[in-house]
Amino acid sequence: MAITDRIADRIADQITDLDGLRDALREFAAARNWPQYHTPKNLSMALIKEAAEIVEHFQWATAEESRQLTPQQKAEVADEIADVLMYLVRLADVLTIDPLDAARQKIIKNAVKYPALKSD
Amino acid sequence: MAITDRIADRIADQITDLDGLRDALREFAAARNWPQYHTPKNLSMALIKEAAEIVEHFQWATAEESRQLTPQQKAEVADEIADVLMYLVRLADVLTIDPLDAARQKIIKNAVKYPALKSD
Amino acid sequence: MAITDRIADRIADQITDLDGLRDALREFAAARNWPQYHTPKNLSMALIKEAAEIVEHFQWATAEESRQLTPQQKAEVADEIADVLMYLVRLADVLTIDPLDAARQKIIKNAVKYPALKSD
Amino acid sequence: MAITDRIADRIADQITDLDGLRDALREFAAARNWPQYHTPKNLSMALIKEAAEIVEHFQWATAEESRQLTPQQKAEVADEIADVLMYLVRLADVLTIDPLDAARQKIIKNAVKYPALKSD
Repeated sequence: MAITDRIADRIADQITDLDGLRDALREFAAARNWPQYHTPKNLSMALIKEAAEIVEHFQWATAEESRQLTPQQKAEVADEIADVLMYLVRLADVLTIDPLDAARQKIIKNAVKYPALKSD
Repeated sequence: MAITDRIADRIADQITDLDGLRDALREFAAARNWPQYHTPKNLSMALIKEAAEIVEHFQWATAEESRQLTPQQKAEVADEIADVLMYLVRLADVLTIDPLDAARQKIIKNAVKYPALKSD
Repeated sequence: MAITDRIADRIADQITDLDGLRDALREFAAARNWPQYHTPKNLSMALIKEAAEIVEHFQWATAEESRQLTPQQKAEVADEIADVLMYLVRLADVLTIDPLDAARQKIIKNAVKYPALKSD
Repeated sequence: MAITDRIADRIADQITDLDGLRDALREFAAARNWPQYHTPKNLSMALIKEAAEIVEHFQWATAEESRQLTPQQKAEVADEIADVLMYLVRLADVLTIDPLDAARQKIIKNAVKYPALKSD
């Protein structure tokens, strides 16, 4: 069994939710001596760089074109979405922030700030 | 029971993972007639704007300062992390991309690209 | 004569080109003890934060709407364009890069990379 | 005389200030049928993508390292600074904003907002 297959199998088992992703990224960084570089400041920079990679995919597209990606384009954007998610989860981890909990709190705030057109 | 409490209760029940967050955001947008604005192009712009809000928190901080946030600063960063996560999940939804699956695929690629210092 | 008017007069005299802007920003920073914070790393973060302020102005706009700003919107975008220009010029200064010369070199490269449809 | 040399000569003559850069970029875009893509919305996206290229250069660097670029690194950053400047000038042009004038106005505002430590 090739090493890639073993890694893939273990990762598929481990990453079933955001906490699993957080743990996998924490181990991944530790095994490469990266935690010294993973300050919140540096991670915020890596995060926005990856967000810009998504923006780049759509910068010359019309609204309509941005909705209709080819399978190849979709795979590329998925790759960038993965990068943003991974840096976001890693940033949250080093700051001991739970991103899902933060999202819950923010949606409650937004529900008050932007009332629904009708009862939602 | 106040409306905010009812929303909070329902959201706490609904959002227990990324799929729950995706569904909550989808409903939230539909109830406000927002899907017309939620093109991938526009969402990529909103996403990077929120990523920049995180960057702003750290732009004049030293590496060390960026690790030592006050509770107030941490709450503010959590708020921005929530915004990035929500726009990312919403973008993935309108493109029918599973962000957790994309992250799994990317970690496998990265494991090959950046070998661990020792067997991980 | 009010202090603001005196500053305004002097600035109008001083900033007639990019070199004048560079010198004004250098003095401005020195008079506030800011050079210690003006590392290229920090300035690149401040720069992208201001670029995101421009993006925010256009994130929900259609292509057409983004072309038709009200005077108020135009003034706001001008303000953000100024911020990006100032951080860019400041970043170039601390790295001893001449931005206009860099642009000249880049246009020559681009002219080769993207041939004109007809002789330009 | 090679075409690149002729372009280089003409560009060196033309681009002696921001107005010259603006005119060169306007011609460059027109000769390639690009103005249809150069909406303020699209240009703001291209701008932030290039700003992120600068950020990427510094994301894992310490403050000190970001100050000490090799000639190769400096040339790469100069290239990205050029890209940001060019998209910024092009964006300002399509919105009929004078970036240098906007910067003058902003510095006056900032001089009031952030008083100097001593008379500057």
